[in-house]
Amino acid sequence: MAVYTEVTDEALAAFLTLYNIGGMVAFRGIAEGVENSNYALKTTEGDFILTLYEKRVDPADLPWFLGLMEHLAGRGLSCPLPVRGRDGQNLNPLSGRIAAITTFLPGVWPRRVLVEHCEPLGAALARLHLAGADYAPIRANNLGPESWAPLLQKCAAGSAQIQAGLAEDLAAMLATITAAWPRDLPVGHIHADLFPDNVFFLNGEISGLIDFYFAATDLYAYDIAICLNAWCFERDFSFNVTKSRALLRGYMAHRTLSPAEIAALPVLAQGAAMRFLLTRLYDWVNTPPGALVTRKDPLDYYRRLRFHISASGSSAYGL
Amino acid sequence: MAVYTEVTDEALAAFLTLYNIGGMVAFRGIAEGVENSNYALKTTEGDFILTLYEKRVDPADLPWFLGLMEHLAGRGLSCPLPVRGRDGQNLNPLSGRIAAITTFLPGVWPRRVLVEHCEPLGAALARLHLAGADYAPIRANNLGPESWAPLLQKCAAGSAQIQAGLAEDLAAMLATITAAWPRDLPVGHIHADLFPDNVFFLNGEISGLIDFYFAATDLYAYDIAICLNAWCFERDFSFNVTKSRALLRGYMAHRTLSPAEIAALPVLAQGAAMRFLLTRLYDWVNTPPGALVTRKDPLDYYRRLRFHISASGSSAYGL
Repeated sequence: MAVYTEVTDEALAAFLTLYNIGGMVAFRGIAEGVENSNYALKTTEGDFILTLYEKRVDPADLPWFLGLMEHLAGRGLSCPLPVRGRDGQNLNPLSGRIAAITTFLPGVWPRRVLVEHCEPLGAALARLHLAGADYAPIRANNLGPESWAPLLQKCAAGSAQIQAGLAEDLAAMLATITAAWPRDLPVGHIHADLFPDNVFFLNGEISGLIDFYFAATDLYAYDIAICLNAWCFERDFSFNVTKSRALLRGYMAHRTLSPAEIAALPVLAQGAAMRFLLTRLYDWVNTPPGALVTRKDPLDYYRRLRFHISASGSSAYGL
Repeated sequence: MAVYTEVTDEALAAFLTLYNIGGMVAFRGIAEGVENSNYALKTTEGDFILTLYEKRVDPADLPWFLGLMEHLAGRGLSCPLPVRGRDGQNLNPLSGRIAAITTFLPGVWPRRVLVEHCEPLGAALARLHLAGADYAPIRANNLGPESWAPLLQKCAAGSAQIQAGLAEDLAAMLATITAAWPRDLPVGHIHADLFPDNVFFLNGEISGLIDFYFAATDLYAYDIAICLNAWCFERDFSFNVTKSRALLRGYMAHRTLSPAEIAALPVLAQGAAMRFLLTRLYDWVNTPPGALVTRKDPLDYYRRLRFHISASGSSAYGL
């Protein structure tokens, strides 16, 4: 579910006068998404998405995110284009939050990832990296490797209830990952959360990428590693190398991976698994049982992490 | 939130071949609604709603509900029209559920009810009653007065945790309500759940009524009593007689209320408050703390119930 902030019709009507997008036709909450409140907004001019940014998003980051989306859309990438109001602003207050209207993208996100999805996904990721290359502002990744040890510390106490010795296990794995973390790989703007529910397909092709609110300036290859975690494991946590090979083939058709990037894939994939494991663990430990949020099992990523640790090298990913 | 059943793109694509509504454009879960899973479905032909009926809906009732909606839409009422497939069927299996596609209605439901909403609401309720009069099949109201004592019994044990003596209090009130329940009032098809989130407004007028899955054949005036509970209390549970007067005025402009119906309003309003109190109490007592469902406070309706019990007569509602 993803409607945390209710918008009254009066507040919405007042908000819409700031924009030049026609008259209201319909307004419905969207179930997808976890971080922010999203509404499908239909006006006499067409379909839009209204997003109210919730507490996990730092308002100071919003101009960077929206600027990136505008930049990428301007480079022909199919991503939500923030709509500017009559005064040129694309962020405005609404119901106690900061809110933005973006264009509506067609397509359906794949509930079950098939091999056929992975090559287009890889290609879209590379195109995103290339299209973002000349977006000048940078944003440090506040969920990058430096954040992981403090995050683990915050959930260490509560983690034993999930699996005995989990915090100690993770601390040891984290030390190894951090020590091996590559420092000299190509850097640029990455999506950093390109899970299947953020990728729309239509007629077998990618019709849109959404949800840029974890985007940051970090290693390009780390974004690939996130996708390997998000797209290439089966429901039983077995790794599907046909999917990863397709994903990497799609990527490399648009952007060449250096030997150093290829060599770093296993540790980057470990790091990516660690990052999602830790944020899920944090949520698990800190979400009160009655809360209206799906707590995702952190151990799903523990299993992925163990696969990546056991990987003998980049050949494990089909290279 | 209201997406309990995930639909894979393959299942959706196969399902859509049963209909003649164009090619897929987009598919998003809708946050509103509690009982069923709802998706906004956009095709090359337009916008639709896809509903998967969840466990609280008896599949045997679905043809009655959809028949009523089709009947009402045929009489010019703005309600979802079930779309018939190529074979003439409007119910088909999807992802382990029974599902239906209905037309999309414009409008926005009022997050905050204003006096201006109440007269059109009353008028729409009366028009619904009149338009349904020649729909021949009947459906007994399985949440009618006969159901309340058994429902109370099922939650008696757990209810003391909410308020000491609650079950005993309610049993006494219920006995009084049941003894005074009117038997000879006009009967027809009622919506039975016409809360603000089931009523869309556009430019100050009602643009659609939705969610007919509690509809039943019962006292027309009981449907009014449900609306008095749902639309005329303020957030502090004070009763706004200006709203109820507007609601009744709107209703009576289209359908005359008999003296007996008017005289019965207080007891019908007590019964309506009891009905929502009891289903909320049942959910409260039976919902595990970690569940992904908003538990609505049953005591909200205890306060409404006490107002109706204290009502000196129909004049309390502005008549």
